[in-house]
Amino acid sequence: MPRRVFSRRLLAGGAAAAAITPVAVSTASQAAAEKSGVTRSVAGEGGTVRRVKLYAEKLADGQMGYGLEKGKATIPGPLIELIEGDTLHIEFENTMDVAASVHVHGLDYDIANDGTALNRSTVEPGGKRTYTWRTNTPGKRADGTYRPGSAGYWHYHDHVVGTEHGTGGIRSGLYGPVVVRRKGDVLPDPGKQFTIVFNDLTINNKKGTAAPNFEATVGDRVEIIMITHGEHYHTFHIHGHRWADNRTGILQGPDDHSRVIDNKITGPADAFGFQIVAGEGVGAGAWMYHCHVQSHSDMGMAGLFLVAKEDGTIPGYEPHHLSSMHSAHQGGRPRPPRQGQGGDRMPPEQGTAEAHHH
Amino acid sequence: MPRRVFSRRLLAGGAAAAAITPVAVSTASQAAAEKSGVTRSVAGEGGTVRRVKLYAEKLADGQMGYGLEKGKATIPGPLIELIEGDTLHIEFENTMDVAASVHVHGLDYDIANDGTALNRSTVEPGGKRTYTWRTNTPGKRADGTYRPGSAGYWHYHDHVVGTEHGTGGIRSGLYGPVVVRRKGDVLPDPGKQFTIVFNDLTINNKKGTAAPNFEATVGDRVEIIMITHGEHYHTFHIHGHRWADNRTGILQGPDDHSRVIDNKITGPADAFGFQIVAGEGVGAGAWMYHCHVQSHSDMGMAGLFLVAKEDGTIPGYEPHHLSSMHSAHQGGRPRPPRQGQGGDRMPPEQGTAEAHHH
Amino acid sequence: MPRRVFSRRLLAGGAAAAAITPVAVSTASQAAAEKSGVTRSVAGEGGTVRRVKLYAEKLADGQMGYGLEKGKATIPGPLIELIEGDTLHIEFENTMDVAASVHVHGLDYDIANDGTALNRSTVEPGGKRTYTWRTNTPGKRADGTYRPGSAGYWHYHDHVVGTEHGTGGIRSGLYGPVVVRRKGDVLPDPGKQFTIVFNDLTINNKKGTAAPNFEATVGDRVEIIMITHGEHYHTFHIHGHRWADNRTGILQGPDDHSRVIDNKITGPADAFGFQIVAGEGVGAGAWMYHCHVQSHSDMGMAGLFLVAKEDGTIPGYEPHHLSSMHSAHQGGRPRPPRQGQGGDRMPPEQGTAEAHHH
Repeated sequence: MPRRVFSRRLLAGGAAAAAITPVAVSTASQAAAEKSGVTRSVAGEGGTVRRVKLYAEKLADGQMGYGLEKGKATIPGPLIELIEGDTLHIEFENTMDVAASVHVHGLDYDIANDGTALNRSTVEPGGKRTYTWRTNTPGKRADGTYRPGSAGYWHYHDHVVGTEHGTGGIRSGLYGPVVVRRKGDVLPDPGKQFTIVFNDLTINNKKGTAAPNFEATVGDRVEIIMITHGEHYHTFHIHGHRWADNRTGILQGPDDHSRVIDNKITGPADAFGFQIVAGEGVGAGAWMYHCHVQSHSDMGMAGLFLVAKEDGTIPGYEPHHLSSMHSAHQGGRPRPPRQGQGGDRMPPEQGTAEAHHH
Repeated sequence: MPRRVFSRRLLAGGAAAAAITPVAVSTASQAAAEKSGVTRSVAGEGGTVRRVKLYAEKLADGQMGYGLEKGKATIPGPLIELIEGDTLHIEFENTMDVAASVHVHGLDYDIANDGTALNRSTVEPGGKRTYTWRTNTPGKRADGTYRPGSAGYWHYHDHVVGTEHGTGGIRSGLYGPVVVRRKGDVLPDPGKQFTIVFNDLTINNKKGTAAPNFEATVGDRVEIIMITHGEHYHTFHIHGHRWADNRTGILQGPDDHSRVIDNKITGPADAFGFQIVAGEGVGAGAWMYHCHVQSHSDMGMAGLFLVAKEDGTIPGYEPHHLSSMHSAHQGGRPRPPRQGQGGDRMPPEQGTAEAHHH
Repeated sequence: MPRRVFSRRLLAGGAAAAAITPVAVSTASQAAAEKSGVTRSVAGEGGTVRRVKLYAEKLADGQMGYGLEKGKATIPGPLIELIEGDTLHIEFENTMDVAASVHVHGLDYDIANDGTALNRSTVEPGGKRTYTWRTNTPGKRADGTYRPGSAGYWHYHDHVVGTEHGTGGIRSGLYGPVVVRRKGDVLPDPGKQFTIVFNDLTINNKKGTAAPNFEATVGDRVEIIMITHGEHYHTFHIHGHRWADNRTGILQGPDDHSRVIDNKITGPADAFGFQIVAGEGVGAGAWMYHCHVQSHSDMGMAGLFLVAKEDGTIPGYEPHHLSSMHSAHQGGRPRPPRQGQGGDRMPPEQGTAEAHHH
């Protein structure tokens, strides 16, 4: 069974790749890291102008998706990562037979880039246009107050298919994640970013037994980007792992009094994200993640976070012995951990180049 | 089309006006401000005893509202602003033919001021009584723990019409906003405070195309007070602007790790508030705000935050070209920005005097 | 009318009792405390290995509960308190005729202790097994990032009765609270911890007029542990008291910018907690707590936080004069405050010993 692509990492623009390529940690951290032989990767300097192509397409099953290349749309759409200060030009092409758009949350844009019918920024069937998004670093305003930066876990979606609010487009799959980093923000390990969208009673528009699993090895720094869409409220829960309910999902230190949680209520268009160290303190295993609204989980809003040992095994995980819900994830037989992980993920350089050449 | 009154700023009591009148910023900020020629206004010292009259009334359309004068009730009711340390005496008169009350969230009051049938603090038809609310500054308790102050975005509502929990009163419009400031809190620009109440499937008890719009000019410091009531959960979203999910909605500086968001799930009796600089980083435009539960926005839980340029124009905003949803807001023709803004808003001095004279 | 047991405090293991016994405050606080003659109790050092027995049982009314002794199961189940660094072994026995389990939120455990069918960690009818939970202190990781500790308001529940997600077990009452403290965390007064679970349209599986009341005296340091389960979202509200929306529910000082609230939206498996000083700034009274979703409170999701004066009286509280909703709480006649409070609560030493002897 081919592995589903949960998120494709987009590092838009040639200079972008350099900017987001893991850079040296700050002096103090470097010292600590050198002792233990471990280094962490952090976001570099922002300020780059990036450019990418994005296509809205009808999928074979009648759903709709965004993609970086024609014929390669996915649900969710490609992950867009920026650093505060970056600008992104999206050359958008609507290959569908209905008007579509791209509306983004959290970023800065002139009203003509709103992606709404109200502001005449939707794209007719077969049409093209460029949407420009900007981001800013935090800092003091002239009046002495603090202006927030753009860093956060955001998302984009259609705002016109079906209704003026894009209800039909969102339901069909026209949505995707956006992450804006602050200079110095810790980066997740390559290929270990997973987008989970609770869209009505689906996960990433997959129903019941088709809900996606995610794979990591103990010690991987994993990033979860969690978005909700549609009609219903949900509660996102993951077994054996917890995160801070703040901007990064990572506690900043002993003076960060944010709640640490493993369950969070969310509603349509809410987005949050966090990083966890796979299996930290708990080890390898088939850790469930699910909506904790009981009828929702019972209807299949549940998947697995498969954390393998270094040798690739997952203790107690025998998919063919499991119930229908879980065996269906695996097509009836065990799947070697991390299989296909590298191939499905677009490496930064390749992704950049590809996006750049279009 | 007459402009709806979204909130009327109540600065209760003569001394109150002085207390909340913009005062000089602190020394350090002042220095920075002087260079740029910009000053900000902050809350002064609390501790004042204030007094106001409040009426519960049946409106012409059968709904109910609170007002500062007889025959002038509004939905939401008047905005009540206090500074930590203030005490407010509300001389309440129930002009309706059913018992009504005023129950407040977040502030201090003796149990006899609860506004509930349980505590025999409701007011019979035609009756009067005084409710007393107190507020306190934060500080250390005798046991060394930190006692929170009263500062926050709160609200008041009826707790007896229809049911013991005031379900009928709230549904009919008996609710209003309360803001308690901390000394030094930044104040919004005069007239730029907007209260948005998601009450069942209405905004401020207006359905569908009648949902309110709000007007500002680029650079205005705008305050949004967001309250939810009724049966449903909602997600509040505004286009092109974001806020910090903390006490003030303003990041306190680089060590404030609060999430910065543009979408937030809320349920009945939740309240939050924030300040934004209109058009900051995005410019003028007709910026939508709406509930992001798709069926709710499709049913009309959406309005406009109209941000004009200094010359009064709003790029791309031509109401008569828009869809039925939006043209209805405007009565079919463009409306000059800020028209009627001054007249509808009760100036601090006038409001105070008026409240004081009753 | 016998007082319902809302929570039973479990201090598991002999050494545990010592560890959680109120210890001296830090030097600085001690000084302040000595002046006023008041001391506060804080959590001691963690790191103890604790052991307890836990039974899943059918109750007389057909519901299900967890208990520390056979025949003494309660809904919610016993409160489990740990200090970061502690390990807890739960010797679990399922006395029911269906498979059951214990799944915990927030704590660390090997996958074999997941409490799910997926990970074959449920217990057959009449069966036994030991679940081991661990907790950790916060600190820096080798890569310089900050690892969160286990401190928080958590909970445990069945994950197999009825469905793979334990929907039937949770609905029937198989859930309970867990509090993990950080060394130095302020402790509530003995007997003043109350667990409130909004489970579908019940409070602690009690419907309508049977909803629980809680009793305290002005000045008591009270801890509320609030958990949601089932299908619905709710908003938890309490009259006359407010708390910080952070890890402890207590503001950490002037630089803690957490929102202070008295109303909070929650969904299934969300948990939060806070401490309040009973009647602080508001005095004695029958303070309502309720779900603020209007139909939910109207259907009876409401109870009383009965705060008495030192002399035991509660101003304005005459249960026999109240409406049916509230008189039913009291069985038609006034009940002396604090009656039975001591007897229902398991004292730390006794609870520990008892748990230890099994």
